[in-house]
Amino acid sequence: MPPTDPNYEARVRASFAKQQFMATLGASMTTVQPGEVSIELPFRADLTQQHGFLHAGVVTSIIDSACGYAALTLMPPDRAVLSVEFKVNLIAPAQGATFQARGRVVRAGRTLTVCTGDLRVVGSESVVAMMQATMMAVDGRSDRRD
Amino acid sequence: MPPTDPNYEARVRASFAKQQFMATLGASMTTVQPGEVSIELPFRADLTQQHGFLHAGVVTSIIDSACGYAALTLMPPDRAVLSVEFKVNLIAPAQGATFQARGRVVRAGRTLTVCTGDLRVVGSESVVAMMQATMMAVDGRSDRRD
Amino acid sequence: MPPTDPNYEARVRASFAKQQFMATLGASMTTVQPGEVSIELPFRADLTQQHGFLHAGVVTSIIDSACGYAALTLMPPDRAVLSVEFKVNLIAPAQGATFQARGRVVRAGRTLTVCTGDLRVVGSESVVAMMQATMMAVDGRSDRRD
Amino acid sequence: MPPTDPNYEARVRASFAKQQFMATLGASMTTVQPGEVSIELPFRADLTQQHGFLHAGVVTSIIDSACGYAALTLMPPDRAVLSVEFKVNLIAPAQGATFQARGRVVRAGRTLTVCTGDLRVVGSESVVAMMQATMMAVDGRSDRRD
Repeated sequence: MPPTDPNYEARVRASFAKQQFMATLGASMTTVQPGEVSIELPFRADLTQQHGFLHAGVVTSIIDSACGYAALTLMPPDRAVLSVEFKVNLIAPAQGATFQARGRVVRAGRTLTVCTGDLRVVGSESVVAMMQATMMAVDGRSDRRD
Repeated sequence: MPPTDPNYEARVRASFAKQQFMATLGASMTTVQPGEVSIELPFRADLTQQHGFLHAGVVTSIIDSACGYAALTLMPPDRAVLSVEFKVNLIAPAQGATFQARGRVVRAGRTLTVCTGDLRVVGSESVVAMMQATMMAVDGRSDRRD
Repeated sequence: MPPTDPNYEARVRASFAKQQFMATLGASMTTVQPGEVSIELPFRADLTQQHGFLHAGVVTSIIDSACGYAALTLMPPDRAVLSVEFKVNLIAPAQGATFQARGRVVRAGRTLTVCTGDLRVVGSESVVAMMQATMMAVDGRSDRRD
Repeated sequence: MPPTDPNYEARVRASFAKQQFMATLGASMTTVQPGEVSIELPFRADLTQQHGFLHAGVVTSIIDSACGYAALTLMPPDRAVLSVEFKVNLIAPAQGATFQARGRVVRAGRTLTVCTGDLRVVGSESVVAMMQATMMAVDGRSDRRD
């Protein structure tokens, strides 16, 4: 899937930098390739649920951003991306030093893009969580979802 | 659905207080009733995505906690709750002063509990996001999912 | 939610009649109201899974059609409806004489419509399955999803 | 993932043969390997939706059976499998001569198994639909979900 915007990486990284919540979590964007984006997050105690693991919402947050930006890499320059919906399976407790979320485009349509994503502990191959998501290309100047 | 643990409310509120991530978000638990829990979250700029709305992961976080604790209200005292999976539709931009997430049990089984949840802006009836989730009762002394 | 097509009911019933698979299942459309559609299905042994209950795919089929046509009731006359995605929780064994699937629009957008649906045994209030779905309005003369 | 039941293939094929709905659809089980099952379905006009493509419920039916039986390959001999929930993205119109559904285990737990599945047109690599599913091991002599 070739990107239609040659400047896709700078555009994606600039948009990520505007997601204040990613800074709040301490997440950073690592890989940005056509149709694929990775985000890393070091463990912090203030991101945990009642058993001391990463909260499912934190897990979701960084996989969602990885999927959304994977979709954006393939969108034309005048488009913005919004999450339409996602489904997450929490497969193993999110415990570890650093987490890596990966988002990957399965099919990029004109309006809708379908992505899969997952979360792993860096240094391990076992999957902590899996996402299947739908992203939407919207007018880049608009704040409307639809 | 009558709770099997007469002390359910105190147990739910104590567990919520251990979710450090809820404090990080500034979320507070409001209603706790058998099979139903509400969580409120005031808007904060450091919780936003690139367009200035609440990040989908924040939206998910508080609906997930509301659903999980709605499930816990109906579990026996020696059980803990874990999220198995959830699906979220993001229906409208999450903009407003204060958000309310509600979780409600549809069916409480011995092992699995199915919940629905949503997020609304306080003072409005329109739905920002909807969740359909599966929660699991686990041994309260164990950290294992399964 | 007022329908934009005054002829919505005839249009929906005509489209349902073209779903040959509904005839194969023996399903019939009952209620058609703005934003809400019901489909009934009598039990048949040749629709079962290995334990003698209705197969999850049959359950899904009629809730999906109910949700899709609920969405179509609110679309303009020149639009057709396609299922983008759905999520189903199977809550109780699908056993009974007649099943009723209901689809209901939660939010109708210009392009995307979010629906919820469920399946019950006729004469019972307990839920057999629940769906949360996204439907899409497409050009009525086109066969393209996007 | 080694199967705990050396007789897993015969057990899976025998259970599939009891799914009367698969015969109704004309579906046949092809590959059965530890953690992976494939099901094929020739196109038939009586399985279509209003535009002449395979109905989303048919698509779902065979991916669900493929995922469920992929999970069963890894379960002990005294266990039966039930679908807890699944999420399906319909990515492209289901048009073609023969369809292949594949189910694959991502993580097999004692109670819950997480699977991914997809549907392709035989002879094509493009994905028609994707599933993310949760399966449950239940007492093989019981008809209760939970």
